[in-house]
Amino acid sequence: MMKLRLLRVRNALVRECMAEFLGTFVLLLFGCSAAAQVKTSRETKGQFLSVNMAFSVGVMSAMYLTKGITGAHLNPAVTLSFCVLGRVPWRKLMPYSLSQVLGAYVASGLVYLVYYDAIMEFSEGVLTVYGPNETASIFATYPTEHLTLGRSFLDQVVGTGMLLLCILCLDEKRNSPAPSELTPPIVATIVLGISMSMSGNCGAAINPARDLGPRLFSLTAGWGTEVFTCYNYWFWVPVVAPPIGGVLGCLMYLVFIHWQLPGPDPPEDTSTLSTISDKIKQPSSTWENEVELKCAHL
Amino acid sequence: MMKLRLLRVRNALVRECMAEFLGTFVLLLFGCSAAAQVKTSRETKGQFLSVNMAFSVGVMSAMYLTKGITGAHLNPAVTLSFCVLGRVPWRKLMPYSLSQVLGAYVASGLVYLVYYDAIMEFSEGVLTVYGPNETASIFATYPTEHLTLGRSFLDQVVGTGMLLLCILCLDEKRNSPAPSELTPPIVATIVLGISMSMSGNCGAAINPARDLGPRLFSLTAGWGTEVFTCYNYWFWVPVVAPPIGGVLGCLMYLVFIHWQLPGPDPPEDTSTLSTISDKIKQPSSTWENEVELKCAHL
Amino acid sequence: MMKLRLLRVRNALVRECMAEFLGTFVLLLFGCSAAAQVKTSRETKGQFLSVNMAFSVGVMSAMYLTKGITGAHLNPAVTLSFCVLGRVPWRKLMPYSLSQVLGAYVASGLVYLVYYDAIMEFSEGVLTVYGPNETASIFATYPTEHLTLGRSFLDQVVGTGMLLLCILCLDEKRNSPAPSELTPPIVATIVLGISMSMSGNCGAAINPARDLGPRLFSLTAGWGTEVFTCYNYWFWVPVVAPPIGGVLGCLMYLVFIHWQLPGPDPPEDTSTLSTISDKIKQPSSTWENEVELKCAHL
Amino acid sequence: MMKLRLLRVRNALVRECMAEFLGTFVLLLFGCSAAAQVKTSRETKGQFLSVNMAFSVGVMSAMYLTKGITGAHLNPAVTLSFCVLGRVPWRKLMPYSLSQVLGAYVASGLVYLVYYDAIMEFSEGVLTVYGPNETASIFATYPTEHLTLGRSFLDQVVGTGMLLLCILCLDEKRNSPAPSELTPPIVATIVLGISMSMSGNCGAAINPARDLGPRLFSLTAGWGTEVFTCYNYWFWVPVVAPPIGGVLGCLMYLVFIHWQLPGPDPPEDTSTLSTISDKIKQPSSTWENEVELKCAHL
Repeated sequence: MMKLRLLRVRNALVRECMAEFLGTFVLLLFGCSAAAQVKTSRETKGQFLSVNMAFSVGVMSAMYLTKGITGAHLNPAVTLSFCVLGRVPWRKLMPYSLSQVLGAYVASGLVYLVYYDAIMEFSEGVLTVYGPNETASIFATYPTEHLTLGRSFLDQVVGTGMLLLCILCLDEKRNSPAPSELTPPIVATIVLGISMSMSGNCGAAINPARDLGPRLFSLTAGWGTEVFTCYNYWFWVPVVAPPIGGVLGCLMYLVFIHWQLPGPDPPEDTSTLSTISDKIKQPSSTWENEVELKCAHL
Repeated sequence: MMKLRLLRVRNALVRECMAEFLGTFVLLLFGCSAAAQVKTSRETKGQFLSVNMAFSVGVMSAMYLTKGITGAHLNPAVTLSFCVLGRVPWRKLMPYSLSQVLGAYVASGLVYLVYYDAIMEFSEGVLTVYGPNETASIFATYPTEHLTLGRSFLDQVVGTGMLLLCILCLDEKRNSPAPSELTPPIVATIVLGISMSMSGNCGAAINPARDLGPRLFSLTAGWGTEVFTCYNYWFWVPVVAPPIGGVLGCLMYLVFIHWQLPGPDPPEDTSTLSTISDKIKQPSSTWENEVELKCAHL
Repeated sequence: MMKLRLLRVRNALVRECMAEFLGTFVLLLFGCSAAAQVKTSRETKGQFLSVNMAFSVGVMSAMYLTKGITGAHLNPAVTLSFCVLGRVPWRKLMPYSLSQVLGAYVASGLVYLVYYDAIMEFSEGVLTVYGPNETASIFATYPTEHLTLGRSFLDQVVGTGMLLLCILCLDEKRNSPAPSELTPPIVATIVLGISMSMSGNCGAAINPARDLGPRLFSLTAGWGTEVFTCYNYWFWVPVVAPPIGGVLGCLMYLVFIHWQLPGPDPPEDTSTLSTISDKIKQPSSTWENEVELKCAHL
Repeated sequence: MMKLRLLRVRNALVRECMAEFLGTFVLLLFGCSAAAQVKTSRETKGQFLSVNMAFSVGVMSAMYLTKGITGAHLNPAVTLSFCVLGRVPWRKLMPYSLSQVLGAYVASGLVYLVYYDAIMEFSEGVLTVYGPNETASIFATYPTEHLTLGRSFLDQVVGTGMLLLCILCLDEKRNSPAPSELTPPIVATIVLGISMSMSGNCGAAINPARDLGPRLFSLTAGWGTEVFTCYNYWFWVPVVAPPIGGVLGCLMYLVFIHWQLPGPDPPEDTSTLSTISDKIKQPSSTWENEVELKCAHL
C-alpha cells in the first residue's frame, strides 16, 4: 500500500476535480447511451421514459461515487448555487465546472465509439441536426420547433430552480431530512421527475456541463458547426439559464423554508453534506455562518 | 444571520401556510408539467404512466420540503381528516386549505407560462375543454363521457379513502411502521398506485386543491366558464367527495387496525408526525388523547 | 378512549382475521382497479405493466397495514407455507385463508361498483369470459388459449415457489437481511418481478385468495358459471398449485440457504417477523425451535 | 434441529457454490422468464423495459439470498474482479464460475419448461436463431445485424466496467456508502440502468454465466449449433470481454476514487462485504491489505 499511496494526488482540488470529472462521465455515459439505444433502435429497445430513467440511474451512481469527495455536484449550476450559499468556496467554481464539462465530453466520445455502428446505420452515414434521421439529439439537447427563445430560457430557469429547491431540504436536520445514505436515489428520483415533466420544450438539460460537453463533442465528431448555430445559436440557453435558475431556486428555498425554521441552528448542521477535504481544511466554519455572510451580500 | 432572521415570519400559522403553499405548488408543478408534456407532445415524450409518476415525484419532493413544518398535508382532504382525528387543530383547516388551493393555482400559472408555445401549437390557439385538441385536462380533471354523477362521487370517495387508509398506518409504532425518514417516497408510491388504478373514471384528483386550483386558473387563463359548467357542473365532485372519502378511510383504519392494536398507547406515539410548531405549542397533548376526545364525538 | 377500547375485538384470532381481510382487500382493490382501468380504457390509461405495478403497490400498502398484526400473509399459500415452517400455528390456516378470500371478494365488488359504467360501456352490457370485449379478466386470472393443464400447474408452482424462496431470506439475521421496516416495498418489488416475468401463461395469480375471491364475485355479479367452467374447469389450478409451489419454495430455501447458515441460531432470530399476538401468547417458542419440530416431520 | 443439521454441507466451498448456483438460478429465472413472456406475447404482456426490470428484480432477490454467504457475485466477471482486488481468493474463481454457469443453465431449462407451449406456438414449432419467429434470444444474447466484432467487444467491456465502477464504491466507509442492508436494490438499479442504456448493441450480457449457461441450454434443447456458430461464432464475446471490462472498471475505480480517499484505512473496512465463511477463515486479513498485495503485482 505504501507504493500505491504514491498514486494519490497530493493536491486536494485536483482530487476533487477528478471526482467531478468521473461523476459527470458516469452520468452522461448512462444518459447518452440510453439516448443512443432508444434513437438507433427506433424505440424498439426503450422509449422516452427509459432515457429519463437512465439519466436518473446515472445521477444515483455518480453521487455514490463522489458524494464523499466533493458533494457530487455534477453540474456547474449546482456548484454555483452552493458557492452562492457559501457551501463551496468560489475558487472551486471554475475548476469544478471545467471538470464537469470535460467528463461530459469524454463520456460522449465513449458513447459515440460504442454506438458508432448503430449511429451510422440509423443516420445512413450522414450526421445531421435536423430531420427524421438526425442523431445530434443523442448528445446535446435541442428545442422543439416553435419554441420561442424567452420560453426556452424560462423553461431552463424553472427546471433548474425546481432541482435546487427540492434537493436543498434533503439534509436539513431541523426539517424532515432524507437518510443521508439514501440521498443519491432520492435526488435521482427528483431528476427523473424533472425530466418526465419539464423536458417537453427543450430536453431538460438543467445543467451546462450535461449540454455543453456533448455539444462540443458532436462538433468535433462530425456533426459540424450546426450543433451550435442551429435554432439561431440556441446553444447558450442551457449554459446560461440553469445557473440563474439554480440561484433562484435556492432563494425560494431560503425564503419559504430555510429562514422559517426554528433557530439558532445547531453547529453540527454542516456535517452531512460537507466533504472530506472541507472537513480537513475548514473545521471551524459552518454552513450557516457562510450563508449568513454570503446571503447578506445579496 | 441576525439580519436574515428578520425575514422569518413571526406568526407560526403564516409560516405553516407558506409551507403548504410551497408544497402544493411543487406537487402541481411536477404533475401538471408532465400532463402538458405528454399532451402537447402527443405522447411522444411520455405517456399516461409518466404523468402518474411525475405526480408521485411531486408528492415525495413536497413532503421532504414541508413534512417537518406542517406534516405535509398538501390536500384539504388530508387536513380535514387530521382535524377529525385530532392530529391538527380545526382552526388550521381553512388557512391550510386556502394555501393549498393558492399553491395549486400559482403552479398552474407557471406551467401555462412554461408550456405556452406548446399549448398554443397543440390547440391551434383555441383553448377548449372538449374534443381531440382539448387542453383543459392539463390542469383540472374531467370525467369520462358516460360516467354517471354518483359513480364519479363514489370513485373520489374510494380513492381518497384508500389514500388515508394506507398512509395512517405508516407511523404507528405498535404496528409495522415505515422508516420515518422514508415516508415521503412511500406515500409517493401509494399515490402512484392510486393514480395507476383509480384514475380511469375521472382522473384521480382525490384532492380538492389539486383540482380546484388548476380549474380556477384555467378559468382565468382563457378556457372560459366551460371548465366549471361542463359535464353538468361536475367540478364540485372532486371538491366535495375527497374530504368525505378521507374521513371514511380514517374510520376504516380505526376500526380494522388502530383500535385493534394492543394498548395503552405509549405517550411517545405522537412524536413522529407532529410538527415543529406543534411541539412548541402543544407539548402536553398527545395524538392519542386527541383521538380519544374527537373520536368520542363521532 | 376508554369507550373506544370497547370496540376492540377481544378474540385475537378475530382481530388477525380482520387484518388479513383488510390487507387482501387493499391488495385486490389496487390490482383489480388497475386491471379495470387498463382494460376499459383500451390501454390508453395504462398498460400491462401498470397493472403489475398496481398489484405491487397493493402488496406494499397491505403489508404496512397488517405486518405487525399477522405478518401480512395476504395469501393462503403463504399462510400454509408458514404453517409448514412452524412460523404460524396450523389452527390459523383456515380462518386466515377464508378471511383472505373474503377480502378479495369484497374488493372485487367495490371495483365493480366503481368501474360499473366503464365495464358496461366496454362490454356493451354483455359480461363475458371470451372474446375481444371480455371483462372477466379484470377479476380472476385465465390461461392463454394453447396452454396445457400441466403447464399451467407448473407455472403456478414455479411462480409461488419463487415468491417464498425470495421472501424467506429477507429477515434472516445470519445471512444478509433487508431492513425490517422496508420489507413491504422489497416484497412488493419481488411480486412485481414475478408478475412481469411469470404472468405470460396464466396471469401469475400465485395466490388462491387473489384468484378465487374475484372469481366467486364475478360468478355472482353476472358473468355466469362460465368463470368456473371455462378452459375445462381451469379455475382449480390457481387454487391448488400455489400452496404446493409455496411449500416447494420453502424447501428449496431450507436446502440451499437456511440449513447451510452457521449455527446455532441466536434466540432473538424469531423477533423480526413474529406478530404482536404471537409475542403475547408464545413467548418461549422460537421459530427455529418450531422449524426443528415441524421440519423433522417432513 | 440436530437431525437437520446433518443436511448441512460440511465443505464451506461447496456451500458457497450452492449459494452462487441458487443466486444465478434466481437471476436468470426472473430475466429469461420475462424475455419469454414479452417475446411470446408479442409485447402485449410487457415490453423491452419490463425485461430489463425483471433482470433487475432478479439481481435484488439473488443478492438478498446469497450476499451473506458469498457476497453475491452471480457473475464470473465480478468474481474475477474481486480476485484481482484480493477480496476473494483465486482458488474460488473456477468453482464459483462453474456454479454460476450451471445455475443459469438450469434456470433456462425451467423457463423452457414453463413457457414450452408459448414458445412452440410463437415459433410454430421451429426453434431458430434468425428471423421474425426466432426464440433463441429468450435465452442467450445476440448482436444486432451490422455490429462489428470489435464494437461488440468494446460494448461488453464498457458495460461490465461501468458495473464494477459503480458497485465498488457502495461499501466504502471513507466515501459515501450505501446502507449495507439496501445494497441489493441499489445494485439492481445500477444493473437496470446498464440494461436500459447499453443493451442496444448486443443485449448487455455483461456476465459470462448469464450468457453461456442459457446458450448451452438452447444448444441442448433443440436450437442447434447455430446458437454458437451464428454471427461468425460471436458467442465468445460475452464470455471473454466482461472479465476484461470488470478489471478495467476496478482499475478506474482505484485510480479515480479509491486511492484518492484519505488514509490509512481503518481496519473495520473489510467487514461490510466479507462473507460468513471468510470471517471464520480469514479473521486477520483485511481487504485493504489484500488489495495492497494483489494490486502491487499489477
